[in-house]
Amino acid sequence: MPNQTKPVMRPYLAATADFASGKQTPRQFLEDSLALLEQWEPRIGAFVCTTAPAARAAAERSTERWRAGKPASPIDGMPVGIKDIIETVDMPTEMGSALFAGWRSEKDAACVRALRDAGAVIIGKTVTTEFAASEPRGTRNPWDTARTPGGSSSGSAASVAAGIASAALGTQVISSTVRPASYCGCVGFKPSVNAMNREGSHDIQSQSCTGVLGASLADVWQVAYEIVARVGGDAGTPGLQGPAQWPAAKKPKTLAVLETAGWDVASPAAKQSFNDRVARLKSAGVTIRNRHDDKDVAALENELLKATELSHRCNGFEAQWFFRTMRERGASKLGPITLERTYKYDHLTLADYRADIKERARIRAVYAALAASCDGCITLAAPGAAPEGLASTGNPEFGVPSSLLGVPALSLPLFEDGGLPLGLQLIGFFNADADAVAMSSWLMQAK
Amino acid sequence: MPNQTKPVMRPYLAATADFASGKQTPRQFLEDSLALLEQWEPRIGAFVCTTAPAARAAAERSTERWRAGKPASPIDGMPVGIKDIIETVDMPTEMGSALFAGWRSEKDAACVRALRDAGAVIIGKTVTTEFAASEPRGTRNPWDTARTPGGSSSGSAASVAAGIASAALGTQVISSTVRPASYCGCVGFKPSVNAMNREGSHDIQSQSCTGVLGASLADVWQVAYEIVARVGGDAGTPGLQGPAQWPAAKKPKTLAVLETAGWDVASPAAKQSFNDRVARLKSAGVTIRNRHDDKDVAALENELLKATELSHRCNGFEAQWFFRTMRERGASKLGPITLERTYKYDHLTLADYRADIKERARIRAVYAALAASCDGCITLAAPGAAPEGLASTGNPEFGVPSSLLGVPALSLPLFEDGGLPLGLQLIGFFNADADAVAMSSWLMQAK
Repeated sequence: MPNQTKPVMRPYLAATADFASGKQTPRQFLEDSLALLEQWEPRIGAFVCTTAPAARAAAERSTERWRAGKPASPIDGMPVGIKDIIETVDMPTEMGSALFAGWRSEKDAACVRALRDAGAVIIGKTVTTEFAASEPRGTRNPWDTARTPGGSSSGSAASVAAGIASAALGTQVISSTVRPASYCGCVGFKPSVNAMNREGSHDIQSQSCTGVLGASLADVWQVAYEIVARVGGDAGTPGLQGPAQWPAAKKPKTLAVLETAGWDVASPAAKQSFNDRVARLKSAGVTIRNRHDDKDVAALENELLKATELSHRCNGFEAQWFFRTMRERGASKLGPITLERTYKYDHLTLADYRADIKERARIRAVYAALAASCDGCITLAAPGAAPEGLASTGNPEFGVPSSLLGVPALSLPLFEDGGLPLGLQLIGFFNADADAVAMSSWLMQAK
Repeated sequence: MPNQTKPVMRPYLAATADFASGKQTPRQFLEDSLALLEQWEPRIGAFVCTTAPAARAAAERSTERWRAGKPASPIDGMPVGIKDIIETVDMPTEMGSALFAGWRSEKDAACVRALRDAGAVIIGKTVTTEFAASEPRGTRNPWDTARTPGGSSSGSAASVAAGIASAALGTQVISSTVRPASYCGCVGFKPSVNAMNREGSHDIQSQSCTGVLGASLADVWQVAYEIVARVGGDAGTPGLQGPAQWPAAKKPKTLAVLETAGWDVASPAAKQSFNDRVARLKSAGVTIRNRHDDKDVAALENELLKATELSHRCNGFEAQWFFRTMRERGASKLGPITLERTYKYDHLTLADYRADIKERARIRAVYAALAASCDGCITLAAPGAAPEGLASTGNPEFGVPSSLLGVPALSLPLFEDGGLPLGLQLIGFFNADADAVAMSSWLMQAK
């Protein structure tokens, strides 16, 4: 059955202006979320579980803080979803796995604790693919319920697109934030590697990041900022760098177009939208470099052809100990895509791994050198609109480069493909996340 | 009641020579472990839980592998204990906390999985202080049950000292491997930071390490090596560097004596033992540098006076999000030492933390510069014998420098104080763990 209603996102920061006067309240904002949840959830299956009573109580406290002129943060009262690979003290963390049905961590992940301290209202756990990898878990795309919302942050993207949550936490180790954001038409932000504290998230690989999917760029930046302000980046690192309010729009002088391995599989409409945009950027005075006229970009593109296989090898070694135990607990309870993947990388040795991370570091250095003559890179966030069917979360190629490189990436809902959303992707430089957001802001305004 | 029996450790690698012939078997070695467990456990309380049936089955399989000439590794069949801050799929992980009584991770930590794959026989979970911090949990020192075994790896040290386990996993973020090893007379090895995969260990701070306490230097090296060979270091790092068999003894040319903040509280007998040892090292032709005659060492000693407070501040920020949730779950279920600590560092901001890790990095660089003119450092592993009473795990000062610096440290059972064990501590340089072990080997032989 096709949707009767086009999904509409609900940015939160823009709504808070009326909170002090009481014209609007976090409590009412949440009621609208819960009404949308009731309306959409049967059709999209974005949540593993929800906690309406706790959410209402939290929104009530938030309403009082705003009324008293003392919100805990700019996101105080924001309805948020938590990807079910991330631990919550009051809900199970099932990781999309039958082996963890009902499992409880008995603690909040660092990012969840930070959201609570910032006053955010957690409305539930959002569906993830199995162990945040590729095995889908039935969530449907609110733009067309016959299509995947992408993965692995499937429920986070769908819940934001449907207006239920203003933002939701995702993770990305291959393409898991940028791709679902693109397919569902929300803003996706994967920060620099290590920039947001991952303790209590079970997405444990070295290029994994906790990311944010949201209804607006401002919402997404603020959520990331408020988390890091309270719990930092990964232990031992300085954490996300940038201002307490989202950065002012910044026009880039020079952008590199990265076609990457994804270009070959991109739809004609996606390529057309992207090329049109590039032409308009040139008209606006932005210098564009690409593989055809710039040997540094061509060299980088050549390196990035290895991104997917190298990423899978690094991730594979880092996770193989975990999957060996899971196979013993019950191989029949693992999905076929997951099970095949666990065998595929089981042969890798420590020597292989050392060579792989050395190679990754070399490619990161090649990319970093580009910063001297370039403000950032642009590409598609996905090869086209979300594909039909729920058996696959779609082609991940466009998401991989920023994951391998450990650099910030944003999916901006600027394109469409056959009436469905498609993201422009901006890729920045390591720990220059605020710059990437500022340029994204300019790109959004310039549309 | 004083012990009737002096504890005797049981090195494992030395026993495996007779396994191929069947003169000795892993199964019999384990039976002796279980007999010692029965004899000692009521007096020392080293274990939270044990799994004799599973251990016997594992030892049986190991016996068959050795008989077939195909051991999974040199530690195949070794009876080992796992500090109860580290996850095990077949036993609860209680972390010394009433809040995690009976809690199950439903998976093995990376290091535990590696031990199983290497054929080691896990006999149980060893007692940790609450959340691997300072609140003791009743374990007694096998050398004198009126005394602490040290902490936080209390049960690991006691079980190795009593001969129940040939090695046990510990962790260290302040002094938690080196100090209990010293008090219990076993070998303690805290590797370079990140050198051993910590996934599934709840000791999450950036200077935390998983370490090994064992009956001999060879046992300790081999356990560390076999773990890292299978699961690497922390994700994204190369992991422990060194040979597959333990390094040949290596005589250092130059050693720096580090008195550190611990020297002021060291017992006269401890100081005397240490000074005698230094004199003998000089006689053996080792050049000794110290704060009194060397300005670089004096400058380093000066920096290290900040080690304890700076370590607590870094750890405090990194763990505060966790303890906020624990306080809400039940402050009355937290021990008083833990509870006070959680409040003490609750005020730290991200800006404080960034300054603190920058300062730590600066001090690490000061230390690293010493490597150009020095093979390693020596000091005491504790201020003296284990103190009487169980209310405290003893003074941690001597353990802190290597934790702050992120460098390898070994406690070698070379001294005694009033008939009780005391360790000489060797501190090496970052990722030169094999060198530190090779020099330790020489120091043990030269005794």
